[in-house]
This record gives sequence, C-alpha cells and structure tokens, in this order.
Amino acid sequence: MTTIRIYIYLKLQAHSSTTPIHQGVPGSVWKLGRLNHIAIAVPNMEKATALYRDVLGATVSDMVPLPEHGVYTVFVELGNTKLELLHPLGEKSPIAGFLQKNKSGGMHHICIEVDNINSAIADLKAKNIRTLSAEPRTGAHGKPVMFLHPKDCDGVLVELEEA
Amino acid sequence: MTTIRIYIYLKLQAHSSTTPIHQGVPGSVWKLGRLNHIAIAVPNMEKATALYRDVLGATVSDMVPLPEHGVYTVFVELGNTKLELLHPLGEKSPIAGFLQKNKSGGMHHICIEVDNINSAIADLKAKNIRTLSAEPRTGAHGKPVMFLHPKDCDGVLVELEEA
Repeated sequence: MTTIRIYIYLKLQAHSSTTPIHQGVPGSVWKLGRLNHIAIAVPNMEKATALYRDVLGATVSDMVPLPEHGVYTVFVELGNTKLELLHPLGEKSPIAGFLQKNKSGGMHHICIEVDNINSAIADLKAKNIRTLSAEPRTGAHGKPVMFLHPKDCDGVLVELEEA
Repeated sequence: MTTIRIYIYLKLQAHSSTTPIHQGVPGSVWKLGRLNHIAIAVPNMEKATALYRDVLGATVSDMVPLPEHGVYTVFVELGNTKLELLHPLGEKSPIAGFLQKNKSGGMHHICIEVDNINSAIADLKAKNIRTLSAEPRTGAHGKPVMFLHPKDCDGVLVELEEA
C-alpha cells in the first residue's frame, strides 16, 4: 500500500504543478491533430485482409497479435491515413461483445491524434466529456491513449492518441 | 418480360464492348486512393458541430443542405482527412433509418477515393462485390460515387468516389 500511496501522491503532485484542471484549461493548451486510423472489427481476419489487399488493391501489414489488448491487428494503408482491422484474441477481448452484436463486423472506433493527452483529458473532463478510464493507458502503438464515451460523441467511440 | 430481356441484353452488350468482366481485370486498371471522409450520422447537428468546434477545437464548415441527397452536412477538418456530419433532411432521408436504430448517432460510412470509378466498379463486380446501385451517381461533392454492399465489406458501408 505504501508504494501505491507514494505513486498516487506523485501523480497528484505532477498534476498540480503542470495542469490546473479545476480552473479550466484554455483551448490553446492542447491541439487536435490528424486522423490516425479507423478501427474496423472483423469476424474473419483472412477474408477482411484479402478484401483490402486482393480486391481493393491496398497495401496491408502483416497480422500482429497484441495479447495485452486482446486483439489481432492488420493495418491497411490508404496514403493519408489507415484502417486498423481488429479481430478478437483471447477470452476477454474488448471487441468480442461488439462482434456478437454486429455479426458481419463494423466500424468500431476512430482515433484522432492530440499533441498533449493529459492536457486534452483535463480540458475535456472540465467540459463534461466522459472518458472510459480514469487515466490514459498505453495503446496499440506504444503511445498513451484515452477513449471518450460514445454517448458524449454522437454515438462514436473516439480514441485520442498522443502523437 | 420482353422489355426486361432487352434491357439485360443491352447491359451485357454494353459490358462486353467495354470491360471483359468474365476474363478478370488487371489490378493496374484502377487504383484505390486516400480516405476522403468518415461520415457520422448525428441526431442533433448543432450539438455535434459544437462538440468538434468548441470542445475538440477543430475547424468546421458551415452547414450545407443537400436536398437531392436528403441530408444536411457539416465538414470537420482533421488535417489529413475530414469527418462529414450528416443529419436527415426531408421525409425520405437515406439516414433516417440508421438514426432510428442508432438513437445517439454513429459512424455511417467511409469514403475512399479511386482514380477511375467505372473501372473500379467493373473490377469489383467481377470479384463478386455487390454495389448498392447499378450505376454510379453524383455524390455530395459533385463527383461520381458508388456504394459497396456492407455485407461484402465486413459490415462497413464503403463509398468509392472518383477523385
């Protein structure tokens, strides 16, 4: 418990010295960037990869398993951005429920880059946008990410990623 | 029946004189391009525009009514691509049903550019990808577009637009 308390104390210290979250954050503190990717949950990764590679002629990555995120991923290059094909990995995959509701697959989320994720989160919380976790976590690209609540974003699951 | 037979005959004739669909089309005939936009259907356009403009700090366009497409549109600039916010216009809006099923709104389709839409369509039909109409129509940007069937694209409604 001592270790955890020290960690929390350090986190609070870090916040108080950098971002005054209760005083409101000016819009210029962080900036929204480019669209990083659109994530598409697919029931059959081979078939989905073949669609984009063999039928539509796009360049696609190898399939990469990300056990800590509960997904297999394949990236489809579109020049200005990319599609992230997702397929469940393991029993606790975060996209398993989505695929149960959407048997054919479907658009799961969009990921938009931000220059400073902690400033963005503090600002958005002050503006009553809910997040799916209390703190950012490390995303599929090894960078801090945060998901915004779809109910506060017109039914769209929006991921912010620090670029 | 005679009329239908003649129509089918003419369609086959038209196909045979332009694109040998049964012999396969080389991949180099047309090319997939960049992501033009992600379309998001929203139940409240003012609220959605405020989210992207005032909360997330993006540059947004004025709202444009497109009566011939049955939608109001607002474009959100993301640097490398854009979001297209859609709200129903008129009684026969093509997104009315989607919003009845998705009360909070949601991602409606993605639009990817192609360099030659007629070649793309002929090629995709030969590869058993269904389209939502027999011929391309003029899209929201005044360019020819075609929608691919979501059942053939992992549950995603894919719009191709000639760039």
